[in-house]
Amino acid sequence: MAKRIGVIGGGQLARMMTPPAINLGLELRVLAESENSSAVLATTMVGDYTQFEVVAAFAETVDVITFDHEHVPLAVLRKLEEAGVSVQPPSRALAFAQNKLEMRERLGALGLPMPIWAAISTASELQEFLNDNGGVCILKTPIGGYDGKGVRVVKSVDDASDWLEAATLASVGGALLAEEKVNFVRELAQLSARRPSGEFATWPLVQTVQANGVCSEVLAPAPGADDQTIARAAEIARGVAEGLGVTGVLAVEMFETPNGRLLINELAMRPHNSGHFSIEGSTTSQFEQHLRAVADLPLGSTAPTKPHAVMVNLLGVDPQNDFVTGFDKTLAQHPSAKVHTYGKDPRAGRKMGHVTVIGEDANEILAEARATAQALLQGETRSHA
Amino acid sequence: MAKRIGVIGGGQLARMMTPPAINLGLELRVLAESENSSAVLATTMVGDYTQFEVVAAFAETVDVITFDHEHVPLAVLRKLEEAGVSVQPPSRALAFAQNKLEMRERLGALGLPMPIWAAISTASELQEFLNDNGGVCILKTPIGGYDGKGVRVVKSVDDASDWLEAATLASVGGALLAEEKVNFVRELAQLSARRPSGEFATWPLVQTVQANGVCSEVLAPAPGADDQTIARAAEIARGVAEGLGVTGVLAVEMFETPNGRLLINELAMRPHNSGHFSIEGSTTSQFEQHLRAVADLPLGSTAPTKPHAVMVNLLGVDPQNDFVTGFDKTLAQHPSAKVHTYGKDPRAGRKMGHVTVIGEDANEILAEARATAQALLQGETRSHA
Repeated sequence: MAKRIGVIGGGQLARMMTPPAINLGLELRVLAESENSSAVLATTMVGDYTQFEVVAAFAETVDVITFDHEHVPLAVLRKLEEAGVSVQPPSRALAFAQNKLEMRERLGALGLPMPIWAAISTASELQEFLNDNGGVCILKTPIGGYDGKGVRVVKSVDDASDWLEAATLASVGGALLAEEKVNFVRELAQLSARRPSGEFATWPLVQTVQANGVCSEVLAPAPGADDQTIARAAEIARGVAEGLGVTGVLAVEMFETPNGRLLINELAMRPHNSGHFSIEGSTTSQFEQHLRAVADLPLGSTAPTKPHAVMVNLLGVDPQNDFVTGFDKTLAQHPSAKVHTYGKDPRAGRKMGHVTVIGEDANEILAEARATAQALLQGETRSHA
Repeated sequence: MAKRIGVIGGGQLARMMTPPAINLGLELRVLAESENSSAVLATTMVGDYTQFEVVAAFAETVDVITFDHEHVPLAVLRKLEEAGVSVQPPSRALAFAQNKLEMRERLGALGLPMPIWAAISTASELQEFLNDNGGVCILKTPIGGYDGKGVRVVKSVDDASDWLEAATLASVGGALLAEEKVNFVRELAQLSARRPSGEFATWPLVQTVQANGVCSEVLAPAPGADDQTIARAAEIARGVAEGLGVTGVLAVEMFETPNGRLLINELAMRPHNSGHFSIEGSTTSQFEQHLRAVADLPLGSTAPTKPHAVMVNLLGVDPQNDFVTGFDKTLAQHPSAKVHTYGKDPRAGRKMGHVTVIGEDANEILAEARATAQALLQGETRSHA
């Protein structure tokens, strides 16, 4: 049993791993980018995670290494593994999270459903893909993108001329990923967890709602999903986890098409925004489960605590609003809402926190979660009204 | 709004305040007795809480002072208050928690129900009390007792001769507290919280089960309690909180008599063992509520998350058993049990952690919580079986 769990990265995911570590009696240690990260309470080292010496020194202090983000260079992780360090998920899995072209190739080899795609490195290849796919595609840089960055809707070669320049292409690995623009009715996410020893668990399938490429709301379970869709999503998650060798929490983001197909959009090999609802909404939260999984401890029950849960992100709207003004008015008006803040400096569009409400009535809790988030985000305005 | 909350004492109560502080974005700072306390993650200062200079230096770093225990000398707290520090609960309330004779006097003045009692400072006073109360009483030292310490069943003056010696009497304030030995059917506890501005909230009335003077199990809600008992318990809690000026969480431990009366046994002006069930069993846990209350933030909903919750304490049985051996077997067999460990060195009889299970069926979850606790406590044995 691993008792000391080392997390690389001090963002809100590492922050939210802290409470279950305290409860279970696991020792959480964080290698953060700065002294005042979101995960400041568990931070035991501050340093540059791209430097092998830094990460190796951190690894000396823990029993297993895991992650708040997927940006640690593979070369660093492979060298750690060669030195005998337990890295969960392992570098061979993270390789697919760090390169969307390799991910697509591997998913294809596993026969898992996804949008039509191609590797593009010239204007003529892009034109051909556009011709074959209705004159529009989603073009992605295979490495370095997140939350809508490194993604572009492209309708002509001109829309991508900057990305096709030799220097840019080289910086993203030599090729771009083109995907058909899927006609979807909604986006779903399947959260799961897997231990190195193989035990696997899924949470209820959820619906995610995006605004400007960033997750804004999550509805658990996904409204009106039929048994076949639910079973298929869990099957896909298991296929990805086992096929790619993922350990810890895995989020599979999917499109649901008008004819009921599920197509894999993105993967995250760590706790994910689509799973924040589980802190209150599940017997075992994604953060506790991630700790259990990477420590190779038995997984906890993922049964829901209430029939429905809704999570609404607090996306910064105003660099002056740190939720202090109006905080108490909001709590007074919404005594059942669970407010989570991430201790970050406010910035427009930044994920500053989230609100979860659980209950019997899906519409009621959605309205309550939205009203709470809105009250927090409009704190300044409201307090002057 | 107070953002920085200072807790004096680094025990498991301070430890369990850490997760909700992280979630709500409140800054928790702990003045601990030692470097490796249960609340090590939030510890910002180590020092002697009986020294005014130490506590005053700690108070400089926070917006409000609260407590993991009730042992900070009143003189220290009064001096802090005179210097303008917000102390919650205030010294005038803690005076009653620190001296059971003053507590009894005040509860009497408020007309609140309790056992027959008397202040005893001579053998003849004790004999008279025994004569008046069926030849038996519960004798308590008014200060310094906890978890069964400083409490004795007395049937003759000889049973208390050591406590009646001048030096001992002087060390506990000059008198002992004698109480009738109540004929009770069970013990109940009413948990509540009160803000400095007056807002008040109660959780469901619970039944507590004691073993050797220490809480071993809590059943929430108290099985079979009728509406009148439930209302009366909440009324008593409000009477105590308002009458004694308590802020933060208050636990009122009570006897239920064969004819349905409730008699106040003990008070705790802080989160309490009888409220640990609320971490999973309530929309707002006692730890989050305590933080909200002492920061004078609006109180959260105390609605139950499931119809029933059961908490079973992990009382150390073996100085070798730190729950590591057998931990994974236990988690595998009990995926719905929520295990909380306190990071303490094992010692027989010590509160090492607790287990909570919530659910629809009271008997089922009681069996599950007990089995989980037993498996953890017998880890050594089981792993060799």
